[in-house]
Amino acid sequence: MKIALLGLGTVGTGVVDVLGSNREKIAGLTGESLTISHVLVNDINKKRGSGLDGAVITDDIEKIIEDDTIDIVIEVMGGIERTKNILKAFLEKGVHVISANKDMLAEHIDELVETANENNAQLLYEASVAGGIPVIHGIEHSLNSNQITKVMGILNGTTNYILSKMTIDGWDYNRALDDAKEKGYAEADPTNDVEGIDAQRKIVLLSRLAYGRTVDIGTVPVSGISGVDITDIENAARENLTLKLLGKSEYRDGALSISVEPVLLPSDHQLAGVNYEKNAVFVNGNAVGEAMFYGPGAGSLETASAVVSDLINAVRSKDSRHKNFAPDAPAAVENGSGMNEYYIRIKSSGADDNLPAVLDELSIGFSRIDTESDFVIRTGPTESSRIDELKQNDAVDVAAAYQIDGVE
Amino acid sequence: MKIALLGLGTVGTGVVDVLGSNREKIAGLTGESLTISHVLVNDINKKRGSGLDGAVITDDIEKIIEDDTIDIVIEVMGGIERTKNILKAFLEKGVHVISANKDMLAEHIDELVETANENNAQLLYEASVAGGIPVIHGIEHSLNSNQITKVMGILNGTTNYILSKMTIDGWDYNRALDDAKEKGYAEADPTNDVEGIDAQRKIVLLSRLAYGRTVDIGTVPVSGISGVDITDIENAARENLTLKLLGKSEYRDGALSISVEPVLLPSDHQLAGVNYEKNAVFVNGNAVGEAMFYGPGAGSLETASAVVSDLINAVRSKDSRHKNFAPDAPAAVENGSGMNEYYIRIKSSGADDNLPAVLDELSIGFSRIDTESDFVIRTGPTESSRIDELKQNDAVDVAAAYQIDGVE
Repeated sequence: MKIALLGLGTVGTGVVDVLGSNREKIAGLTGESLTISHVLVNDINKKRGSGLDGAVITDDIEKIIEDDTIDIVIEVMGGIERTKNILKAFLEKGVHVISANKDMLAEHIDELVETANENNAQLLYEASVAGGIPVIHGIEHSLNSNQITKVMGILNGTTNYILSKMTIDGWDYNRALDDAKEKGYAEADPTNDVEGIDAQRKIVLLSRLAYGRTVDIGTVPVSGISGVDITDIENAARENLTLKLLGKSEYRDGALSISVEPVLLPSDHQLAGVNYEKNAVFVNGNAVGEAMFYGPGAGSLETASAVVSDLINAVRSKDSRHKNFAPDAPAAVENGSGMNEYYIRIKSSGADDNLPAVLDELSIGFSRIDTESDFVIRTGPTESSRIDELKQNDAVDVAAAYQIDGVE
Repeated sequence: MKIALLGLGTVGTGVVDVLGSNREKIAGLTGESLTISHVLVNDINKKRGSGLDGAVITDDIEKIIEDDTIDIVIEVMGGIERTKNILKAFLEKGVHVISANKDMLAEHIDELVETANENNAQLLYEASVAGGIPVIHGIEHSLNSNQITKVMGILNGTTNYILSKMTIDGWDYNRALDDAKEKGYAEADPTNDVEGIDAQRKIVLLSRLAYGRTVDIGTVPVSGISGVDITDIENAARENLTLKLLGKSEYRDGALSISVEPVLLPSDHQLAGVNYEKNAVFVNGNAVGEAMFYGPGAGSLETASAVVSDLINAVRSKDSRHKNFAPDAPAAVENGSGMNEYYIRIKSSGADDNLPAVLDELSIGFSRIDTESDFVIRTGPTESSRIDELKQNDAVDVAAAYQIDGVE
């Protein structure tokens, strides 16, 4: 079978490596000889490694789209609108598509699935969420016996690295960010990672699949970690709580709550022990209860593991009559309706004596966390609207407010 | 489609519940109406719950085997030889089989797969290892792009509960065992669990699949937890090490090392944080690096989650041309060839001064762990044969020796 590889960057190179190293096993599983026949690159003059002998290396996508011998396309080139149109052109020809492109899929997966299903093509995208962790396949093919009620994941290695350095080594945010850049975990412009935009795309893709509803990315509130103060990490540690940036969603009675935000977890929660660049996704289902998938969220071979797994599965099921999963309705997003505990730090002032009264007025029950400065509390179960009101109250200066989740 | 359910105990009842609760989702995924048409029970007079309206409830297995309308059999009744023969009879008729029976599969899976493949039937067994955790499917369909080099799992909830109580709450073995019995985590005769026999069956099934080689259960050495002394758990904690009963195997250069034994892990290792009745399986692959699957290792609905997932996948792929995975050769088991660090406690005596000389003679490098009594050491990388020689040395009384794994 002939494969076109669109993109030969970190992941594309990994795909070539894995197909080479594990050729014999893959041939045994698929019963097919898989050949990369075409590679789309930006610079056709750049020197390439081995593993691509005989492949057409081109910067002309039209040439690849027009070639009728291609069975499967692997897209690891990035980009949104143009890339979507390219993949649509392949799907319209009945070519199977494997994509690692979360940015594009979070916007356009439903459109692409529709085209795929009209043309009996498969669209697989394991590598788009949490790198090498098989969570897309896990939700779709292993926890499929469950009605899933909650998904909660550490979906971004850059921010998890930074928060781990702050938590474990006591570094402040800027030092941890600089270190992440130096180690190659953060890009020169880290905005998409540290502001939670990358995680937002992933929680959209996970939630769509988990609950069987389309999810409009515009409805997902995002709060990143650039404002996290080491003080709050230290205060929380005294309560055995650990701060993690989570993509998080719950689906109950037909209503979806979904967000990306820093959340405090009990330090003995499975997700709290996932550190540095690792990712993990926690899933609650009505039969399995709690399950978690853990592993590498990025990396060349690591992400290629997911891409090549999709490739093997696409080849093995190419004669299947089953269509790609397509949600039949949009999710009704209702954020802020649930009750949660919160950690809140209020800046100290002469008015401290009034704080309990203010909290009492808002019906926010709390216990005080002992700290050297500031007024720090852990609330009882509280509606998020109460926390919003507190933030807007002119009499208090809320320096930090984090939801506490995972408490049994 | 018609399903025969063999066994209506804890897991069988869970299967009926999950099929009922999630009927709509399952019908959507399979495009089929799935009906339990036959149930095999021991006592046909016992009162049954709902969800089985119209099913033939019988204690006569021949009646079910002879019925040609059955498409799929779910076996959750236990037993080894007789059960294997029953399932073989179904497979010979081309009926798909789903089994949660690790005891039987660890002995007979290769024979059943051969029969299944000769008759275009599927044999699925997700629930047989680690309950609701989708690790069988994960290795077979998601990490299939990898050459897997290592599998290491907490595969038994009873022993993990006992060790967690000893580690976290400081209870001694007998108190923890009694508590496990009281809570229903341990059976009246806990031998199969505490002596590692249950975990042995599971590591056999996992290793067979991971490395693509048949594994003779007789080649797998087993050591349980009934001899674990709280002293060693406490000493190890001071070195940031946590004791877990692991099913463990490695496959390198065509040689398999495999065992079930208590192993010390760094306390920040992902598996070390898996506590009480939870299970988890850690897998190393040459592309993904490290991945872990975590969740419930037992339970009615939890295990049914895996059974019903197999059912959905069996129905969805019933027209697939792909055969069940069948290893083509036995694994060459070579235990004890690798180098590992060890924790060793040697009983104190007047001869303590000679211990360093004994260890030096065996070329066992070590650092001493400070304790109030006994001579406790952590070795450098050492062959297991050296440890065996130490145990056999009349001059020393080795009270405990545990391998240390997962050190980076």
